[in-house]
Amino acid sequence: MDEFKFIDSIKQNTYKQPSLLKGIGDDAAVFRQNYQDVVTAVDTFVENVHFSRKTMDPYHIGYRVLAANISDMAAMGATPAYYMISIVIPENWSESELQQIYQGMDRIASTYKMDLIGGDTVGGSELVVSITIIGFVDKQKARYRSTMQDGDVLFVTGTLGDAAAGLHLLTSDKNDLVQDNNYLIDRHRLPTPRVAFAQALSTLERVTLNDISDGIANEASELATASNLTVQLYYEKLPKHPKLKQFSSEQQRAFQLFGGEDFELVGSVPQKDWDSVLQAAKKTAVKISEIGNVLYEPNGSNNVFLIENGKKHVLEKGGYTHRS
Amino acid sequence: MDEFKFIDSIKQNTYKQPSLLKGIGDDAAVFRQNYQDVVTAVDTFVENVHFSRKTMDPYHIGYRVLAANISDMAAMGATPAYYMISIVIPENWSESELQQIYQGMDRIASTYKMDLIGGDTVGGSELVVSITIIGFVDKQKARYRSTMQDGDVLFVTGTLGDAAAGLHLLTSDKNDLVQDNNYLIDRHRLPTPRVAFAQALSTLERVTLNDISDGIANEASELATASNLTVQLYYEKLPKHPKLKQFSSEQQRAFQLFGGEDFELVGSVPQKDWDSVLQAAKKTAVKISEIGNVLYEPNGSNNVFLIENGKKHVLEKGGYTHRS
Repeated sequence: MDEFKFIDSIKQNTYKQPSLLKGIGDDAAVFRQNYQDVVTAVDTFVENVHFSRKTMDPYHIGYRVLAANISDMAAMGATPAYYMISIVIPENWSESELQQIYQGMDRIASTYKMDLIGGDTVGGSELVVSITIIGFVDKQKARYRSTMQDGDVLFVTGTLGDAAAGLHLLTSDKNDLVQDNNYLIDRHRLPTPRVAFAQALSTLERVTLNDISDGIANEASELATASNLTVQLYYEKLPKHPKLKQFSSEQQRAFQLFGGEDFELVGSVPQKDWDSVLQAAKKTAVKISEIGNVLYEPNGSNNVFLIENGKKHVLEKGGYTHRS
Repeated sequence: MDEFKFIDSIKQNTYKQPSLLKGIGDDAAVFRQNYQDVVTAVDTFVENVHFSRKTMDPYHIGYRVLAANISDMAAMGATPAYYMISIVIPENWSESELQQIYQGMDRIASTYKMDLIGGDTVGGSELVVSITIIGFVDKQKARYRSTMQDGDVLFVTGTLGDAAAGLHLLTSDKNDLVQDNNYLIDRHRLPTPRVAFAQALSTLERVTLNDISDGIANEASELATASNLTVQLYYEKLPKHPKLKQFSSEQQRAFQLFGGEDFELVGSVPQKDWDSVLQAAKKTAVKISEIGNVLYEPNGSNNVFLIENGKKHVLEKGGYTHRS
C-alpha cells in the first residue's frame, strides 16, 4: 500500500488539543506549551515478540500499544496529548488490517482527546509498531521513581495478574475457558491506563509512581533501586480478581508477582497522605490497595522483600523482561 | 544482548540542553519549554529498504538516520534539541555493531548539543531504526510548506544529486571509481542538514522551506500542492557539483531531479528578501542558488514546470518514494 495514501486516510481534519499548531502534513508537527512541562516516551512492539495475531486482532494490537504508552504518561502523573506512529508493515498485512490497527489506536486516543501528529509507514518483513507519546504535567508534579522515602505506604491500583491470566487462557487449547473469561482476556487485549487516578493525585506534593508493564516484582525493584531504599510487599495483600481463583495457587502467584502488562500503577506516598490517595481512588472509581511499605535498611537497600505466610524473603525481580 | 544493559551503556551522565529536567531512566523524559514552540517528527528506517550494509557501515547508518531527522528540523526552521531511538535488532547484529550505530548518532547529535532522552531496544528479524526528534522554534517562526506566494524567488542550498551519485557509485562494481569519489560517497553516508542556514533566516517574516529527502521534483511538488501555486524550475540553474560531470547527461539529470537524500533545503521568499537569504547563506558558509520562481496560474496550480533548453514542460514528481 501507498505510504502517503495511508497517512492521508488517518489525517485528522480537526485538532482536539488546544496547544497544537500543526499536526500531520509538514516536515514536523508544532505545538505550544507555555504553562506545563512536556513529558515524552517511545515504546516499540514487534509481532511475535510483544504480541501475536493468535491472541489479538489488529484492533487489539493498536489499542494495546497505545494503551501501554498512555500508561507511561499515567506513571509520570502526566496527561497524554499527542502521539506519533511508526509502522513497519509486512506484505502479508492488508490495508484493511492496517486500518484496524489504526482504529484500535484511535479508539483509546479519543478517550483522552489525543491528536495523532505524525508518523511513518514503511515496508518490511515483520510488523513493528513504534509509538511516541507526548503529554503535559504541571511544573514540579512529574512523578519520578527516585522519590520514595522511608516510612512511605506502598500501594497498587486495580488487581494484579489479570492480563497474564488472560494471555494464558488465550494460548491454552481450552476454548470453553476462553468463553467464560472475557474479563481476563479483555485485561490482556484492552488494558486501561490509570491516567485519571494519577491526575487526581496532583494536589499531593510527593507521590512516587511506576506502571506495571513487567510484573510487580520487577516494578517494585525499579522503585527500590531508583530510590535506594527497601520495599516490603505482603503477598496476602496483593489485590486479586475473583476470576483468578480458577487457577492453581502456583499459577496465581506467578501471574500476580511476575505477570506483565496489567498497566496498573504501583507507588508510594507519605503515611499522612494515604487518606488523600483513598479519596483520589474513590473519586476516579479505581480500586486501591495498600500492599506494603518503604523503609531504609543499612544492608537491605535496593531490595524488594516479600512477606508470605509470615515469612520474609528477597523477591527477585524475575518479571517478564522484553528479550532483545 | 540485554535491553537494559544497552540503555545503560548509552545513558548520558550530563544533560547538554538546559530545558531538560529528566532524560533516560524513568517512564518518560520531561522538559520545560516556555518561550519557544516545540517541533517534533518521527522517521523510520528499515535495513535493505532505506539503507544497506553493503553501502554503509553501522556508524554511517546511525549518523545518517539522525541526520535525516535533523534535516526535518532545519526544514521547519527549528533547532534540534532531543532525540529518542527505537531499534529492532536481529540476532545477527552484534553488540559492537549496535554500539557503532549509536556512535554514529552520537557524533552528529554532539554537533547540535542534542540529548538522547529515551529509547527502546527489542529483538526482531530485521534491523529497524526509528528516531523521534524534538526541537524548538521561536513563536510564529515555524516554516510551513503552505506559505509560498505568487512572485516568490525559489532557491536551493548546496548541490543536487550528489547523494544519489554516491549511492550509484557504491553499488557499482567499479572500485577505482569509488576511491576517487569520497566526496560523493560521504554525501550519501554522512549528509549535512542545513540547520544553521535555516536559523540564519529567522529574522525573515516569511520563508517557505522543505528538505530534499526524496528529490527536488518531489519536494517542489509538495510545496506547490501545499501552497496551491505553480512552481517553475530552470534545469540549467540547478546547482551541480563538478564531480557529477563524470556521469552521462541522462544520469546527471536523474540524480539532480529525482535523486533523494541530499538533505539540502529548497524554499522560497519574497523577492524583497532575496538579499537577506544571500547574506544568511554567506554567514553560514552554505552555497545558495536561485533556481526558479513561484507564480499563480489559473489552470496550473499545484504543478511544477521544468524549463529546460528553453522549453517548458510539466515535471512529474517521480522522485524516490519509500515503498511500503
